Amino acid sequence: MKTVHVHTPSHSYPIYIGAGLLGDFSLFAPHIGKKAAIITNETIAPLYLQQLSDLLTQNGVHVFHIILRDGEQFKNHESLNQIYDALLAHHADRKTTLIALGGGVIGDTVGFAAATYQRGVPFIQVPTTLLSQVDSSVGGKTAINHPLGKNMIGAFYQPKLVVADLNTLHSLPAREFSAGMAEVIKYALLGDVDFLAWLEQHINKIMQCDDELLAQVVAHCCQMKADIVAEDETEQGIRAHLNLGHTFGHAIEAQMGYGNWLHGEAVAAGTVLACRLSEQLGSLNADDTARVAQLFRQANLPDTPPKFALEQWLAHMSHDKKVENGKMRFITLARLGAAQISEITDMSLLEKTLNKFTV
Amino acid sequence: MKTVHVHTPSHSYPIYIGAGLLGDFSLFAPHIGKKAAIITNETIAPLYLQQLSDLLTQNGVHVFHIILRDGEQFKNHESLNQIYDALLAHHADRKTTLIALGGGVIGDTVGFAAATYQRGVPFIQVPTTLLSQVDSSVGGKTAINHPLGKNMIGAFYQPKLVVADLNTLHSLPAREFSAGMAEVIKYALLGDVDFLAWLEQHINKIMQCDDELLAQVVAHCCQMKADIVAEDETEQGIRAHLNLGHTFGHAIEAQMGYGNWLHGEAVAAGTVLACRLSEQLGSLNADDTARVAQLFRQANLPDTPPKFALEQWLAHMSHDKKVENGKMRFITLARLGAAQISEITDMSLLEKTLNKFTV
Ligand SMILES: NC(=O)c1ccc[n+]([C@@H]2O[C@H](COP(=O)([O-])OP(=O)(O)OC[C@H]3O[C@@H](n4cnc5c(N)ncnc54)[C@H](O)[C@@H]3O)[C@@H](O)[C@H]2O)c1
Ligand SMILES: NC(=O)c1ccc[n+]([C@@H]2O[C@H](COP(=O)([O-])OP(=O)(O)OC[C@H]3O[C@@H](n4cnc5c(N)ncnc54)[C@H](O)[C@@H]3O)[C@@H](O)[C@H]2O)c1
Ligand SMILES: [Zn+2]
Ligand SMILES: [Zn+2]
Repeated sequence: MKTVHVHTPSHSYPIYIGAGLLGDFSLFAPHIGKKAAIITNETIAPLYLQQLSDLLTQNGVHVFHIILRDGEQFKNHESLNQIYDALLAHHADRKTTLIALGGGVIGDTVGFAAATYQRGVPFIQVPTTLLSQVDSSVGGKTAINHPLGKNMIGAFYQPKLVVADLNTLHSLPAREFSAGMAEVIKYALLGDVDFLAWLEQHINKIMQCDDELLAQVVAHCCQMKADIVAEDETEQGIRAHLNLGHTFGHAIEAQMGYGNWLHGEAVAAGTVLACRLSEQLGSLNADDTARVAQLFRQANLPDTPPKFALEQWLAHMSHDKKVENGKMRFITLARLGAAQISEITDMSLLEKTLNKFTV
Repeated sequence: MKTVHVHTPSHSYPIYIGAGLLGDFSLFAPHIGKKAAIITNETIAPLYLQQLSDLLTQNGVHVFHIILRDGEQFKNHESLNQIYDALLAHHADRKTTLIALGGGVIGDTVGFAAATYQRGVPFIQVPTTLLSQVDSSVGGKTAINHPLGKNMIGAFYQPKLVVADLNTLHSLPAREFSAGMAEVIKYALLGDVDFLAWLEQHINKIMQCDDELLAQVVAHCCQMKADIVAEDETEQGIRAHLNLGHTFGHAIEAQMGYGNWLHGEAVAAGTVLACRLSEQLGSLNADDTARVAQLFRQANLPDTPPKFALEQWLAHMSHDKKVENGKMRFITLARLGAAQISEITDMSLLEKTLNKFTV
C-alpha cells in the first residue's frame, strides 16, 4: 500500500492506494462515525457495494445505501435531491458519514451533497475509476452540472479520507481506463517531463493494467495533485494549471452533449489543442505537439477534436469558468513539463489553433 | 457609524452599522468587483433597490438585478435555481459579486447561492430587517429549506462585508421589528446579564425605534455574535449557544407551517420553553422565567407556544439538526446570562416542560 497525504489550510487527510483495500476496515476506522450512507450507482452497486457494506456493518457501523442512476447526465439537481431526500428519510444527522463509491460523477455529486447537507457532514471518497483515483477524488472540488454549464454549481470541500483500491479497476471498461490515462498524461505535461518519458517507456504495460506500474502511476499523480492543492486550495493561482486541456475539453463535452465524449477523451483532444495554442504563442514546436499526440494515441485516446463552427467553440469557451472579466484564459505549455496561464485577447490565435477543426 | 470586525479562520470582514450607509460608496469600494448582481425580493425592490443600484452604477460597477418572491416559503430550491439561471444568463463569472439586499430569507438564500455558484463567488450582505442586522447577516451561515426540514441544505460561507443601514428599519412592519427583538433578547440571556438589565430599562424607547439606542443594540449584538463566531466558525461547540430557544422554535415553525409564525416569534416562545426546561434541570427558577416572559411581552412577542400533541413536538425536534447520535440536545440556561448544552435522555423532563402546551 502507498500513502499520500494532502495538506490544505482547511484540513489534512490521507489517500491510501493499493490492491484489496476495500477489505481493510482499519483504514476506515479512524474516520468513520457510527452511521454511514454508501452512495453509488446502479452499475457499481452489483460489483462492490455488498463488499464495502459488509465490511462496515461487520465492524459495527450502521450503514444504509443510496443508489443513483449512472451517467454524467445524472450529475444534476435530481440526483442531489435524491441524496438529500434519502438522508432525511434515514434521519441522517451532522455526524453521519457519506461514502462516495464510484467514479468522478459519484465523487463530485456526493461530495457536493456532503458539503451542503446540514452545512457539511463527514465524507469519504472510494474512487473506482482510474480518472477518479488520479484526479477527481483528490483536492476537494465538488460539483454538479447545470443545463447551461458543466460543474457550475459546487463547493470546495475536502474528504476525511480517500481509499483507492486498484482491484476495482479490473472491471473498468477499457474506454474508461483510457479516459483516466488522459489525466495521467496531463500531469506529466504540466509539471514533470521525467514522468512523461517514464510514461512513454511503460505505456504498453500500463495499458495492460500491470498492478505494480499502476500503483506507481496513481501514487505519483496523487502526490502531484496534493502538492498543487496544498499550495492553492481554492484555485486562485497555480491550481488552475490542472485545467490544461480543459477549456477546449469542456467545449467538446458541451457541444457533443455531456457523456457522449468521455471527460478524459475530451481532455485528451483538448490538451492537443492546448499544445497547438502553445505553438501559436511560440512556446512549443510541432514536434512537441506530435510527441504528445502520439502518447495519447498509444493510450487509445483521440488526439483530434470533432469539427464544429468557430462561433460554437467560442461560445462554449466563453461560458467556461476560466473566463475572467471578459478575457479568455487558457492553460498553455511554456515547454513540455511546465504549464502557464495565458490570457488571450487576440482571437486570431484561437482561429489558427482551431482552423482545422471548424466547419 | 459603528464598525464591528468579524475574524474567522477562513476570512475576516467588517460590519458597518449606521443611518444612511446605503448612500456611501466608500464602504463598498474595497470589496466589490466590476460586476455585481443585487438580489432582493418584490417587497424590498421598490423601497431600496434603485438607491443601491444607482450608487454602484454611478461608481462604475456593472449592475444587474434578480428579484425573488417574498417569503420564507420561497427560501427554497426554486429561488436558488432562479438565481443560478440569472447568473448564467448574465455570464456572471467567478469575480462577480452577489449582493443580498433584504432580510434573513434573502441573506440565507443569496449566501448559499454565492457559496455554490462556480464553487464560490464574492458576497456582500445588506441586511434590511432588525433580525438580519443583529443575527443572520453575521457569521456566515447560509441555507435554504427542504420540504422535510428548515435550513437543511446550506454551507458556511462568509461575506466580504456587511452594511447595516438603520434607515431601512423605518419601513419594517412592527411585527417584523418585534421578531428581531427576540434575537436581541436571546443574546442577553445567553451571554450578558448586564445587557439584559439595560434592555429592560430601555425597552420602550427601543420599541419606538430610537436611532441612537438602536445603533447600540445592533452593534452590541453583532459584537457578541462576532466573538462567538471567531471562537467557533463551524458550530462544533460554543456557537451552538446561539440556538437558545431554536430547537423548540423550529418545532413551532414547522408545525405551524413556515412563515405563519415568524422566526423571531417562534424563537421568543421557544426561549421561554428553554427557560422552563432549565427549571426542570434545576438551573433557573420560576421568577427567572417570568422575568424573561415579561421582556418578550414588552417587545410584543409571544411568550407561549401554540398547543400541539407531544408526539408532534418530539417528532419535529428529533428532525432538528441539534440531534446527534439519537440524544436530544438543547441549549438551556445555567443562569440568566449564561447558556449551556444539555443532552436530554429522560423524556419526562420534556413532557413536564411541554405539558401545558400539548393537546
Ligand atoms: N472533482 C474534480 O476535481 C474532478 C476532476 C476531474 C474530473 N471530474 C469529474 O469526474 C467525472 C468523470 O469521472 P469518471 O471518468 O470517473 O466517470 P464516471 O464516474 O461516469 O465513471 C465512468 C463509468 O464507469 C463506471 N464505473 C465506475 N467504476 C467502475 C468499476 N470499477 N467497474 C466498472 N464500471 C465502473 C461508472 O458507472 C460509469 O459508467 C466528470 O463529471 C468530471 O467533471 C472531477
Ligand atoms: N444565517 C443565520 O445565521 C440566521 C440566523 C437567524 C435567522 N436566519 C433566517 O432568517 C430568516 C428570517 O429573516 P427575517 O426575519 O429577516 O425575515 P425576512 O427576510 O422574511 O423579512 C421579513 C419581511 O420583511 C420584509 N422586509 C425586509 N426588509 C424590509 C424593510 N426594510 N422594509 C419593509 N419590509 C422589509 C421582507 O420582504 C419580509 O416580508 C429565516 O429564514 C431564518 O432561518 C438565519
Ligand atoms: Zn479533468
Ligand atoms: Zn434565530
